[in-house]
Amino acid sequence: MSWFVTHLECVHCGRRYDPAPDRYVCTECGIKGILDVKYDYEALTGRLTREWFRQSPDRSQWRYFDLLPLARRETIQDLQVGWTPLYLAGRLGEHLGFPNLYIKDDGRNPTGSFKDRASAVGVARALEIGARVVACASTGNAASSLAGFSAAAGLTSYIFVPATAPEAKVTQLLVYGANVLLVDGTYDEAYYLCNAACERWGWYNRNCAINPYLMEGKKTAGWEIAEQFGWDPPDWVVMAVGDGCSLAGVWKGFAEAKLLGLIDRTPRMAGVQAEGARPLVDAFERGSVAPVRPQTLADSIAVGEPRNAAKVLRAVRDSQGTMITVSDDDILAAIHELARFTGVFAEPAGAAAYAGFKKLLHAGVIGREERVVVVVTGNGLKDIKSARAAVQGGRTLRPDLAELAKILEAAR
Amino acid sequence: MSWFVTHLECVHCGRRYDPAPDRYVCTECGIKGILDVKYDYEALTGRLTREWFRQSPDRSQWRYFDLLPLARRETIQDLQVGWTPLYLAGRLGEHLGFPNLYIKDDGRNPTGSFKDRASAVGVARALEIGARVVACASTGNAASSLAGFSAAAGLTSYIFVPATAPEAKVTQLLVYGANVLLVDGTYDEAYYLCNAACERWGWYNRNCAINPYLMEGKKTAGWEIAEQFGWDPPDWVVMAVGDGCSLAGVWKGFAEAKLLGLIDRTPRMAGVQAEGARPLVDAFERGSVAPVRPQTLADSIAVGEPRNAAKVLRAVRDSQGTMITVSDDDILAAIHELARFTGVFAEPAGAAAYAGFKKLLHAGVIGREERVVVVVTGNGLKDIKSARAAVQGGRTLRPDLAELAKILEAAR
Repeated sequence: MSWFVTHLECVHCGRRYDPAPDRYVCTECGIKGILDVKYDYEALTGRLTREWFRQSPDRSQWRYFDLLPLARRETIQDLQVGWTPLYLAGRLGEHLGFPNLYIKDDGRNPTGSFKDRASAVGVARALEIGARVVACASTGNAASSLAGFSAAAGLTSYIFVPATAPEAKVTQLLVYGANVLLVDGTYDEAYYLCNAACERWGWYNRNCAINPYLMEGKKTAGWEIAEQFGWDPPDWVVMAVGDGCSLAGVWKGFAEAKLLGLIDRTPRMAGVQAEGARPLVDAFERGSVAPVRPQTLADSIAVGEPRNAAKVLRAVRDSQGTMITVSDDDILAAIHELARFTGVFAEPAGAAAYAGFKKLLHAGVIGREERVVVVVTGNGLKDIKSARAAVQGGRTLRPDLAELAKILEAAR
Repeated sequence: MSWFVTHLECVHCGRRYDPAPDRYVCTECGIKGILDVKYDYEALTGRLTREWFRQSPDRSQWRYFDLLPLARRETIQDLQVGWTPLYLAGRLGEHLGFPNLYIKDDGRNPTGSFKDRASAVGVARALEIGARVVACASTGNAASSLAGFSAAAGLTSYIFVPATAPEAKVTQLLVYGANVLLVDGTYDEAYYLCNAACERWGWYNRNCAINPYLMEGKKTAGWEIAEQFGWDPPDWVVMAVGDGCSLAGVWKGFAEAKLLGLIDRTPRMAGVQAEGARPLVDAFERGSVAPVRPQTLADSIAVGEPRNAAKVLRAVRDSQGTMITVSDDDILAAIHELARFTGVFAEPAGAAAYAGFKKLLHAGVIGREERVVVVVTGNGLKDIKSARAAVQGGRTLRPDLAELAKILEAAR
């Protein structure tokens, strides 16, 4: 049993709210006033020590249960989420002349993406407050993770997707038994429609930029990296950025670990966007967010109207980090290079992080002696079409069977 | 450092061999004389106790390192393999009126299948004996797992696939940097060609039915199930069967655990084949194996000439188990039912095991009070095409946007 949440705080105006079940955004700031969950860190400081973690047998994100907005463990689903592997990419490091490159493979989560961390918390929270129906708008990983965890929990799920969504992704949702609503419109229209429907029918809203509790699941990745490095965190953490919730979440994990005295310093956060969907990079460089029409094959970060700009920009700045763009060609090359040298097969957004790291390395922003974690946020099996494009030059041989048989025969 | 291997033993004639690096099959029996790796179980009995395992921090298949044919740990790749989650399928059990149904989700392995267990051992072994090139014939999971682990290890891999192999599977191989040889012939021709090429060029042969060491990786799943049940193993373990190596491997794990006194009894093994590829079911019922032309959408078990018949039939009989077939329609329905009630998305062969369990339950072979583990041997993301066929009746709604907007507007 645990509940260390003290209040919710508007990231825009700082106003405080009680953590009421139906509280989403700040009453004053509206949709801009995303709320941040605050905990009784004083009470947690004596409790969550290095020794405490050393003794914890839990190898999932629930080892950070005391830092999550859940009152009890009974609503947690069995699907094993988090505590994903962290690899020193030795061969890839040699190839690059960069000895301390690490891969955090979040494609190993139950439905194949980082988003499982958030959906796992969202579904547990929905059960806690007695919701029977959950919803989100997404064409990708958030949707499949919500559908998967809802299936495990026996919740009804409604997923709003643009009617143009790839059939493969819709298939994954249907397999989990989700109700898929094909919206004849853009992702943005699906998003607003979903929020309106949640309000109208009282469904539990899993949209990360509205529901303050979901980012709490994401922050466990930051905690894990800190702990997997023996509380001596890396110099940089590089991640792809779409809406901005994931990077902001990971940053929150590091910030909390420092607040509780478990680490002495925090890594710098590097956010990577696609050249064709770079509103947050522009905002980072110029100060304000202007919506764009996204154009990239990395569908998980093809976001033109980022909904967590405030949180993610603050995270990058607070960490003394940076933001960078990569081209779709960079992303395709990164899928192949990452897989060939590490055995980790990433979806385009996951590979984008690696492509961004390389660019920062070549630009001298990241030093050769630094320690870097690239977070692979999604499994490559989710997007075989892009993988195919990545291996256009792959080596497929069609041997002359008769010829080969002759060689082999002669050798017997 | 560990090497408890004593000798290799022919499953056909019982002849013994030294575990020489280039030893594959029995000299006397040829291809029929698959070898079984034997260990110094006497020396291991005092060593591998329940307490020893309780204290092991390793959460991968390498916790069973002493029971594997590897001399040292240095050749083990980082890719985290094994110790996959075991779930009590509570909601699915309720749906079926069967309280003790467990799912062992091996789709959570690095390249998405049970085969990673074997390839991980194969690649470590290849490195140990100084091989630089590995090869196998396969259209599916064995190939991708070999390609993935070879990529991590920096080994060159050659994969022989029928030219008719699905493009998606070929893509996964190319992404990992494998050399893919498209053979204008059947899987069987690719298989013999691969073996001949390995002989001719001295490549390390990863074909499971020839290389005695690979099954050792597979047996770790049996060990894991025994340990995850607190050394009080289930009554049944149900698995899909193609060549037969996987079920035989899991059985070996249980047999060893009993031999070392860690469990008192072993589960009964149930092997499931597709109706259109049932040579082992026929052999189990009638005594001899007759090759067939396989016809099933479950490509991972679409095997017409099973190459480990002796080992798998012995395993089923020794365990007092059984074998059964399921139709492709059963398999498709099973994909959907498993995902909807557990959140575990299985590829067709993995779902076939669940379909087989249901059939055995309804036939009264498995009793309502028994404890059953269904092994999901592959991730559903590997075969989206079959998943799509599984959800033909899935609920996709295309709401009238204007209508919906009106309802929502009225509610404000």
